[in-house]
Amino acid sequence: MLLNQIIDIVKEAGKLMLSADFQIAEKEGVVNIVTTTDLAVQDFLCPRLAELLPGSGFLCEEKDMYDISHEYTWIIDPIDGTANFSRHIDQCAICVGLKKGDAMEIGVVYIPYTNELFTAQKGQGAFRNGEPIHVSNRTYENAILFTALSLYHKEHAKVCSDIIMDAYYSINDVRRFGAAAPEICYVAMGRAELFFEYRLSPWDFAAASLILQEAGGVITDMQGQTLSCTVPSGVVAGNLPESHQRFLEVVKKHI
Amino acid sequence: MLLNQIIDIVKEAGKLMLSADFQIAEKEGVVNIVTTTDLAVQDFLCPRLAELLPGSGFLCEEKDMYDISHEYTWIIDPIDGTANFSRHIDQCAICVGLKKGDAMEIGVVYIPYTNELFTAQKGQGAFRNGEPIHVSNRTYENAILFTALSLYHKEHAKVCSDIIMDAYYSINDVRRFGAAAPEICYVAMGRAELFFEYRLSPWDFAAASLILQEAGGVITDMQGQTLSCTVPSGVVAGNLPESHQRFLEVVKKHI
Repeated sequence: MLLNQIIDIVKEAGKLMLSADFQIAEKEGVVNIVTTTDLAVQDFLCPRLAELLPGSGFLCEEKDMYDISHEYTWIIDPIDGTANFSRHIDQCAICVGLKKGDAMEIGVVYIPYTNELFTAQKGQGAFRNGEPIHVSNRTYENAILFTALSLYHKEHAKVCSDIIMDAYYSINDVRRFGAAAPEICYVAMGRAELFFEYRLSPWDFAAASLILQEAGGVITDMQGQTLSCTVPSGVVAGNLPESHQRFLEVVKKHI
Repeated sequence: MLLNQIIDIVKEAGKLMLSADFQIAEKEGVVNIVTTTDLAVQDFLCPRLAELLPGSGFLCEEKDMYDISHEYTWIIDPIDGTANFSRHIDQCAICVGLKKGDAMEIGVVYIPYTNELFTAQKGQGAFRNGEPIHVSNRTYENAILFTALSLYHKEHAKVCSDIIMDAYYSINDVRRFGAAAPEICYVAMGRAELFFEYRLSPWDFAAASLILQEAGGVITDMQGQTLSCTVPSGVVAGNLPESHQRFLEVVKKHI
């Protein structure tokens, strides 16, 4: 089965991720960095995934791989949460999504440090280490929101802060773990209820977005529209349609 | 040795923490909760620690245990990060500090989910799972700040947000893991560089504050004064004296 083949490759890549020493290089100042391990993991993944589906295209974080001209596209972040990885903070993940036409078909997010593997296939539910997962049924008032202050574009930090503060008085609390895909997966498994980032790249959210949806959650752009997984986008996710809608209304007030 | 005896007791309490099913009760609404496990861990710790030092007093989060009339005082949070614990998020810790006179003598912070044990004795360095730890030497510009929005007193959220936003444009990024003691210990071991909360209780920071200082970091109240470990306080911590000072100046502008 294709999903199992992908899982085997991703788990192998996870071993590579934890085994290697790494050097850090700056892409854009100290906040946007890449390590030699990001590149090694991507270089490991791409040829192996290409073998599974000859003729598929690749949309990857590193090395400007952007080919969406095929029916099947692999959307890959070799390490989501590189800053965490570079500091030995657990929350960082290998993300592999497979898009068929306009829709995500498969999503795999693997956190090697905690050995948590999140998987989903369209229409077939979401899983953590093989066990079915589902979003929580906590109310908006008891929601924990994963969010950020638009790290790579700090010119948007003020509007992010305004949105967070507007919501904060109505919800339970906020968290920032510093890696979007693990955070979206944690919403999918019921650890938290809301997720918001002002601008992410497709490789940050593509795989995780299918996992969240298959776990019963709602994920859209900042207008409430279906996420495109080929262009950068704001991302708003919620455990329940009501929670998503209430938070979306806060977002819309400020953008 | 006293520290080793404390470690044995805390590790035993960690097993209790992970083994038990729990019920959740609200202390003040949905944001300030206690579980049956918080109470069970505290009930386990206190008599065993009292045996180690007959005549010592206890300052504990649960059950209004506040006796600081002795030379030795145990300062205990049975579970720091109860909300995380209730949601099966890793970052929650058992905190045991021992104060002698006015100064912390021993600090133990144990995160059972990740099996990370942080320990310090005054003048003898800080350790993670027995290995010496030290703060990072990253600059202020590359600092990651652990912080929060004054969860139990949301009337202070605005000033917290103002401080965070003021600093954000000069530092690297922010994190909120949702448990003060693990966050302070992560600064102590070099995973992040700054820590700020507007108001914490002694059991949140007492044990971790010694660990941070013994790891070479600086921790004070919001005026830059020595922390009192018997009253609630704002907490400002940094990896380097310069980072602490720069962040403290931001805090002072807003309070």
